[in-house]
Amino acid sequence: MKSVTVYDIAKEANVSVATVSRVLNNTAPVKASTRERIQSLINKYQFQPNALARSLIKKETGMIGIILPDITNPFFPEVLAGLEQEARKQGYTFFLCDTGSSNMDIKEQYKRESQYLNILMEKQVDGIIMLGGRIDLYKCTKEMAKEVAAINKRVPLVLINGNLPGAEFHRVVIDEVAGGRMVTEHLIGLGHRDIAFIGGYPQMSNTVARLQGFRTAMEEAGLPVREDWIDHGGFSVQRGKNMMGRLLDMKEARPTAVVCANDLVGIGAIKAAVKAGLQVPGDISITGVDGVPLAASVIPELTTMSLRCLELGRSAASVMHQLISKSPGANVLTTLMPELVIRESTAPPRA
Amino acid sequence: MKSVTVYDIAKEANVSVATVSRVLNNTAPVKASTRERIQSLINKYQFQPNALARSLIKKETGMIGIILPDITNPFFPEVLAGLEQEARKQGYTFFLCDTGSSNMDIKEQYKRESQYLNILMEKQVDGIIMLGGRIDLYKCTKEMAKEVAAINKRVPLVLINGNLPGAEFHRVVIDEVAGGRMVTEHLIGLGHRDIAFIGGYPQMSNTVARLQGFRTAMEEAGLPVREDWIDHGGFSVQRGKNMMGRLLDMKEARPTAVVCANDLVGIGAIKAAVKAGLQVPGDISITGVDGVPLAASVIPELTTMSLRCLELGRSAASVMHQLISKSPGANVLTTLMPELVIRESTAPPRA
Repeated sequence: MKSVTVYDIAKEANVSVATVSRVLNNTAPVKASTRERIQSLINKYQFQPNALARSLIKKETGMIGIILPDITNPFFPEVLAGLEQEARKQGYTFFLCDTGSSNMDIKEQYKRESQYLNILMEKQVDGIIMLGGRIDLYKCTKEMAKEVAAINKRVPLVLINGNLPGAEFHRVVIDEVAGGRMVTEHLIGLGHRDIAFIGGYPQMSNTVARLQGFRTAMEEAGLPVREDWIDHGGFSVQRGKNMMGRLLDMKEARPTAVVCANDLVGIGAIKAAVKAGLQVPGDISITGVDGVPLAASVIPELTTMSLRCLELGRSAASVMHQLISKSPGANVLTTLMPELVIRESTAPPRA
Repeated sequence: MKSVTVYDIAKEANVSVATVSRVLNNTAPVKASTRERIQSLINKYQFQPNALARSLIKKETGMIGIILPDITNPFFPEVLAGLEQEARKQGYTFFLCDTGSSNMDIKEQYKRESQYLNILMEKQVDGIIMLGGRIDLYKCTKEMAKEVAAINKRVPLVLINGNLPGAEFHRVVIDEVAGGRMVTEHLIGLGHRDIAFIGGYPQMSNTVARLQGFRTAMEEAGLPVREDWIDHGGFSVQRGKNMMGRLLDMKEARPTAVVCANDLVGIGAIKAAVKAGLQVPGDISITGVDGVPLAASVIPELTTMSLRCLELGRSAASVMHQLISKSPGANVLTTLMPELVIRESTAPPRA
């Protein structure tokens, strides 16, 4: 079947291609009788305008590129679900780029981010949303930051839960310091004094912020922070098990509660504690950060700081739509407050 | 900054646009000296060929569209991770379309599939991979099947773990009947005779196949299948809790083991059993199907049939690449065998 083009429509309607384009894209008024003639030909041939050709004219693709580090970490699908819920209403579709950090050299990941940034620019997406990766670095190199700043000048860009030095970006973030603080205050409120902090990476800003919140809460309550109870080493269930194992090996002085840097580490910590014969929360209280559905699926259910993944995604989609449609008043910085979700893994310490 | 186009390069190099295109796309030989002259101009202007314009000429976008039903169900991100690992090597990128079934009217989901199929055709992707949704229906309507068959004639299409009547599709599937059978045989081998099956939907082919495997194993072992111990009602943790709750309410005769239609239902079942004061696996053995990482994160760790998500994704990407590159010998049907993963949620029944 030879497909009908915009040129065929224009010819048969005896108008210019530009006029057909105006009807298709609703970009300028067209005389009612002409519009009707064109529309009836569009219907007759079931003409489907070629999106690529059209986007060359309109300079819009309806596509938003999303760069994220690890689709198998449930935090990211949750944020994506929020993004989609909102962006779908506006008719956007997604071009998802997974840089796949979980089993990969971290430098390889940043290289892949650069590749994807280039691909997305080449594909002429309407906007780019970044999560994780270099924007989560506490100290990102100037070179890597510059690359993103250059993209930011060419296309609407929104960062979720991260930042880069040297330029101003549109950002949607959760207050991670408040998160670390609130979850620690919850444990202090239950009567805990001996509290550890495990998980994350010291070079990542989310870890730095959550730990800062932890330290602030301890300090304000007049409690000492034991540096040998602070351990970093990743965000996975397996790393959580390992870190918790090291804590439990300190037989002379064990914490009665452990703040974990995310939910997966919290789940690993629960598993390690249970394997070691401890009861959670009877013998030891454990908390997470993220609020992924998985955290409610373990036994005992994990008390956590919800980072409100869906809302993060929705807010980012909304800022992105404002930027793409050039609506005035898009917030440069949108800050959401995390929410403490008290479940079963926390209780007062044994008397 | 005015951007340099392929026309500017052609003009300055004193060659035709077609010659520049040949150098850019490596589609035909160009005299070495001419090639060098063009390449040096490309370097000089840091010329980035416009992907949209280029794909209009090459009829290739390097994009694979993926339609799936629920990014927050961990099965799908795992398959996606496999797809990406493989397709990335070939230089493809993804256009992910989440039809979002989890909180949605099922008819709405099929409608969204149709929308996405149209969008992907409009965007001129190089291929489409479908997971879940209508291809998982035991009896898909002719109309919905026809729509996909029409697409299949126009662009390479691969179905993962599903099928549609009325046409032949390239498919990569896991043997779900064998899965249901092997997991049931594992329980029978442990000495169980009173085994229930819960989860899934009777209108979905994966549920029908897993249940068929269950029935075959029971029959071959000479064990009766109690129809009141077969319950369908979904694939989520919450649904698993509800279905297990109903089983446990049958106080006169309870099963000693429960085959769950997927891992999330298995996790829900464990939670319901533990809340009811039972020990898993001491009082009751529970199994899942999927093999998502989450299944190893619960306590006790879930014995499951791994559907080999990563391999499913990799195989589908490999078939897709063969179809796009028109390599001969792409398998119409690729069947993978599931793997029994024995963990902690199964044990012999109490004597």
